[in-house]
Amino acid sequence: MVGVCDSRSLLVVDDVATKGMKDSFLMEICRAKSSGSSLASLLSLGQCQIFKDSEMMDKIIDIAGHLGRSTGLAVVDCSASSETVSILKQAVGLGCCIVLANKKPLTCGIEAYEKLISNFRCIRFESTVGAGLPVIASVNRVLASGDPIYHIVGSLSGTLGYVMSEVEAGKLFSKVVQEAKSLGFTEPDPRDDLSGMDVARKALILARLLGRRINLNDIKVDSLYPDELGPNSMSTEDFLSSGLSSVDRDFQEKVRAASLKGKVLRYVCMIEGSRCEVGLQELPKDSPLGRLRGSDNVVEIYSRCYKDSPLVIQGAGAGNDTTAAGVLADIIDLQDLFQ
Amino acid sequence: MVGVCDSRSLLVVDDVATKGMKDSFLMEICRAKSSGSSLASLLSLGQCQIFKDSEMMDKIIDIAGHLGRSTGLAVVDCSASSETVSILKQAVGLGCCIVLANKKPLTCGIEAYEKLISNFRCIRFESTVGAGLPVIASVNRVLASGDPIYHIVGSLSGTLGYVMSEVEAGKLFSKVVQEAKSLGFTEPDPRDDLSGMDVARKALILARLLGRRINLNDIKVDSLYPDELGPNSMSTEDFLSSGLSSVDRDFQEKVRAASLKGKVLRYVCMIEGSRCEVGLQELPKDSPLGRLRGSDNVVEIYSRCYKDSPLVIQGAGAGNDTTAAGVLADIIDLQDLFQ
Repeated sequence: MVGVCDSRSLLVVDDVATKGMKDSFLMEICRAKSSGSSLASLLSLGQCQIFKDSEMMDKIIDIAGHLGRSTGLAVVDCSASSETVSILKQAVGLGCCIVLANKKPLTCGIEAYEKLISNFRCIRFESTVGAGLPVIASVNRVLASGDPIYHIVGSLSGTLGYVMSEVEAGKLFSKVVQEAKSLGFTEPDPRDDLSGMDVARKALILARLLGRRINLNDIKVDSLYPDELGPNSMSTEDFLSSGLSSVDRDFQEKVRAASLKGKVLRYVCMIEGSRCEVGLQELPKDSPLGRLRGSDNVVEIYSRCYKDSPLVIQGAGAGNDTTAAGVLADIIDLQDLFQ
Repeated sequence: MVGVCDSRSLLVVDDVATKGMKDSFLMEICRAKSSGSSLASLLSLGQCQIFKDSEMMDKIIDIAGHLGRSTGLAVVDCSASSETVSILKQAVGLGCCIVLANKKPLTCGIEAYEKLISNFRCIRFESTVGAGLPVIASVNRVLASGDPIYHIVGSLSGTLGYVMSEVEAGKLFSKVVQEAKSLGFTEPDPRDDLSGMDVARKALILARLLGRRINLNDIKVDSLYPDELGPNSMSTEDFLSSGLSSVDRDFQEKVRAASLKGKVLRYVCMIEGSRCEVGLQELPKDSPLGRLRGSDNVVEIYSRCYKDSPLVIQGAGAGNDTTAAGVLADIIDLQDLFQ
């Protein structure tokens, strides 16, 4: 580890060619960040330098140029920013590996995406879909084995998974969303989850992995609230206290209609042929997605080998620990390239 | 691809350093083998040589010595023989990678096992557990991420999975086994499945992957038939026609007892701490294993990250296609070592 970066500054060892950050120093960084201190506050503790603003980006590229091809530097992006794309593209050009927990660089325009994956064996992004769940690794294994993937269906939002299974149990949609927010299951504004855009980004990452040359706006996304309840029309408080309950009845009817057919409603992504959709689907009760309860993610992969009965991966799809575990497994997986 | 081997002979290109087998020739090999012809019958078609008996083993070691370290030769063992261990150990010593669909080399004595995995990044054996299902790859990813695995529970026999879910549905054990045999779900002698030894080998592979230094005879294995119905006491025909029905009543009682507790019986492997067991367990109806129907395999992995709700991998765990797919994905995964 030669450097650590946040949105404001880059802390880097003074000689990247020969030095690395010691574990004890990395622990100090964790402590400083958890207590709200800046990276700059750590300057006195190690033989480090600090870079800010445009200098920060220049320095990363400088390090990438020095270590990328020779040492096998991995640039790891755990931000949620779309501003890292340019630096990641340059790092790839300089022979670096990249590891992403950040979905944004993979869901930008197709040209930038194709540049990022141009050296496909040098990029890992497991934690962008289902956190540490081995979804990307498994899709890649199936593809590598020459087994064509026909379609992928998944419940890729723990929040929406929780909401749908509680609504199925008879609770009112508005109450469940309020509960989910108070349990910390949602973003500060639950509409960030309910809009489906986060699921759409995950769907795009999977669709592109299957070779579809599509963009985010090619995906049909069902929002769980109508436009007139959107962030431009009302505050989060108004949305939760009054707006939300206006869709309860509609929701109850959809759940009842599905139930009459022996099915359950799930908020899923569905990738099949050129079709890529994110929204409510009626699914058989007796399927991995239909049986889903709580906030687990589930992905069903249908291929020539897994045709009638899919390959299913299920488990916690969010959380700091599992996301970090996925990033670390990705970094370690890259070691094979530099034996 | 420089050579192909069956139990009788090795067909190898005449200059392994510069030549490989063409796709068209490999197709001819498939055709010959499917029609029962020998590898020797293909000698006239390509610029190949044939080796038999002890010469065959010597030649493989000779090739491994020439190509192992320099070119990155992978020795792939898709046999079901325990006689390949010696050659695999030598190949590892010569710097070769090894890929196994064969469980026997990984379930022999601990010393041989430790020699085989001594260069852990150069061995792959996905298809030994759950065929092509990404079980080994996922366990390795979890371990690589520093996430300690507390326990693994799995239904790793499609045959026994099918038997247990049919018995649960009210059918007689003896009838279900007869049906499974006529559907081609069992070995020619169904006792090879019912003994649990195949599941025990898979459990041993997983337990060793978790670092347990145990041997096959350290595993507690419940057989689904008593000793007096074993192969030494009666023929397959007698076992199926009369022997088997003598355990029906006992089985029905076990199923009923589990059901009274709201549980279901499953034939599972259970690895937890120093405990490694294979046999019937009463499991909650509402768990991935309890919900299992048909011949799918399921593996539940419990770790620090996947503590309350496990990481679950499910799908077809047998079949030529998926086994071959797993082997191919393993071979391709090794490419990273030789970029």
